[in-house]
Amino acid sequence: ADIVVLPGDGIGPEVTAAAVEVLRAVAQRYGHVFRFEHHLIGGAAIDATGSPLPPETLAAARRADAVLLGAVGGPKWSDPKAAVRPEQGLLAIRKALGLYANLRPVKPHPAALGASPIKPHLLNGVDLMVVRELTGGIYFGTKQRSSESASDLCEYTVAEIERVVRRACTLARERRGHVTSVDKANVLETSRLWREVTTRIVRDEFPDITLEHQLVDSMAMHLLAKPREYDVIVTENMFGDILTDEASMLAGSLGLLPSASLGEGRVGLYEPIHGSAPDIAGRGIANPYATILSTALLLRHSLGLESEARCIEKAVGAALDAGVFTADIAPAGRGVSTQAATGAVL
Amino acid sequence: ADIVVLPGDGIGPEVTAAAVEVLRAVAQRYGHVFRFEHHLIGGAAIDATGSPLPPETLAAARRADAVLLGAVGGPKWSDPKAAVRPEQGLLAIRKALGLYANLRPVKPHPAALGASPIKPHLLNGVDLMVVRELTGGIYFGTKQRSSESASDLCEYTVAEIERVVRRACTLARERRGHVTSVDKANVLETSRLWREVTTRIVRDEFPDITLEHQLVDSMAMHLLAKPREYDVIVTENMFGDILTDEASMLAGSLGLLPSASLGEGRVGLYEPIHGSAPDIAGRGIANPYATILSTALLLRHSLGLESEARCIEKAVGAALDAGVFTADIAPAGRGVSTQAATGAVL
Ligand SMILES: CC(C)[C@H](C(=O)O)[C@@H](O)C(=O)O
Ligand SMILES: CC(C)[C@H](C(=O)O)[C@@H](O)C(=O)O
Repeated sequence: ADIVVLPGDGIGPEVTAAAVEVLRAVAQRYGHVFRFEHHLIGGAAIDATGSPLPPETLAAARRADAVLLGAVGGPKWSDPKAAVRPEQGLLAIRKALGLYANLRPVKPHPAALGASPIKPHLLNGVDLMVVRELTGGIYFGTKQRSSESASDLCEYTVAEIERVVRRACTLARERRGHVTSVDKANVLETSRLWREVTTRIVRDEFPDITLEHQLVDSMAMHLLAKPREYDVIVTENMFGDILTDEASMLAGSLGLLPSASLGEGRVGLYEPIHGSAPDIAGRGIANPYATILSTALLLRHSLGLESEARCIEKAVGAALDAGVFTADIAPAGRGVSTQAATGAVL
Repeated sequence: ADIVVLPGDGIGPEVTAAAVEVLRAVAQRYGHVFRFEHHLIGGAAIDATGSPLPPETLAAARRADAVLLGAVGGPKWSDPKAAVRPEQGLLAIRKALGLYANLRPVKPHPAALGASPIKPHLLNGVDLMVVRELTGGIYFGTKQRSSESASDLCEYTVAEIERVVRRACTLARERRGHVTSVDKANVLETSRLWREVTTRIVRDEFPDITLEHQLVDSMAMHLLAKPREYDVIVTENMFGDILTDEASMLAGSLGLLPSASLGEGRVGLYEPIHGSAPDIAGRGIANPYATILSTALLLRHSLGLESEARCIEKAVGAALDAGVFTADIAPAGRGVSTQAATGAVL
């Protein structure tokens, strides 16, 4: 299989290097051949080529079976008035590859509960999957700017809502059969459309699924007060961005959460949900587990290698059980190096 | 002083009745004359007049010194295809009175920490004030709908941002001098404008204030992981809606959180941040503390009666200290009645 690796910025190179080591070990153990091709994205790509998503990078991604991404962005490129920004590379590759469904599983590991700000008894048994719409909404609508004002358009078509809701329902069928759709239908027209389409798709195509609607503000509360009650949560792009970062606190750290971005085609993009963490970049202390767990999703969703995926998930679980914690989740705030954590998984 | 009371729907009538009782007691004790005028809003107004904000209600509010509101909405009026909805009444009165700054203080009371999903050691000393922009953004932009798609426009003018940021900075001066501005400047044009204007206002007009920018997704995390570090948080309408409901979990329950909506004029609108809770409406078990605490904000911000405001806040604190809990915050889930809680405050 051909895997394109996009290290990106900040801790991106460190965590993708760790994940590639783990993939190599899987290849060796199971007798697969994984070919890795490294390309530029984000700030690193801006520095080298002027563009946050150079054509070579996109072309390589289109040819690949899967893309593994680190993170993009950093203070160096974060002047809000800059013409090109690292994040544009990430948004552009998601859009160009048609990766409309961003899967963000949240399943707190017992050994890491100490790192969560949430009371442990609420976290027992939490196992949820957020499906975030990733190529529509206010992220991609027309933007305007004058000296006196600015605007962003949030837009959704029926087809965009249908496909991501179908994906969420299909996932729910293999889980506990429950879907919570999150919107702000008491205020937004896009949310009213979202609610109508979701209701119709479940009624007509997934009568076996139980569907519940939640307003985004209530959901921000319930996610903390009763996280166990949720199975699959499906929502639009911006709400998904906010709710998944919030949900990461259930798991104790952003450093533990993987994601998969899928479209209709074969190629998927896999990345940790954390950012480039410029403050700790280059120090060898970044938590590699989220990126390593993203390779498990890569094996599962793009390569169809379920046992290999489970093997990685088990190995990370065992490392956590053994107390191999990087600084973000270590009880006293002092943790092991990226390399030591990767070693424990290997 | 003339106070317009808008009970609204669900538990609205119960909690506003409790708050009016407390205001009457304050009037008697301090020798003030408060005149109360009750009017319709929301679903109750739709049922009686066809409009969620009848002209008489708005006219009365304009004449008043302050408006005390319960809550609006409920399943009876929540068909997403309905032409009029209760929430429109709330949005319309905020807009018509020019109430652009929504103050939502969050200061967990020690006695109620048991009800919070957050670990208690993180909550010690939390004292934050969210200033949510209330009359702009995606709530009020052009909405469109066709059979194939829907859209909502998020728009901000420089002047809209300036006035709410000034209000936040002025509040911060009387607090710990720290302002955190929340946006999504790596994606939204409105957020980039927000960040520029905020930076300029603080630099030119509030050099004594320390300003920090946060992305909304990170903020959703930090609010849980290190809530003590924040003083005043200022943000746009939709982000404020989500973050304040999330922040309510720090205090243990939505039922404890008051709000004040202020504009340039004298009249302010005061309401609990919770909704109409149709599931418990009419049962006499709603938590009245948020609405009672909203009257403290009313006395402070619209009537300039600081000692009277403190007196109410102390009385609610004492009721909590004495363990007078309604069901939403009672340890075993069994709590006292609305009337008993109100009695304890009185
Ligand atoms: C970097 C940023 C553009 C991105 C997003 O908002 O989608 C990130 O926060 C994420 O969640 O993947
Ligand atoms: C009822 C709804 C329109 C309202 C809002 O979103 O502003 C409510 O959630 C609030 O926060 O006051």
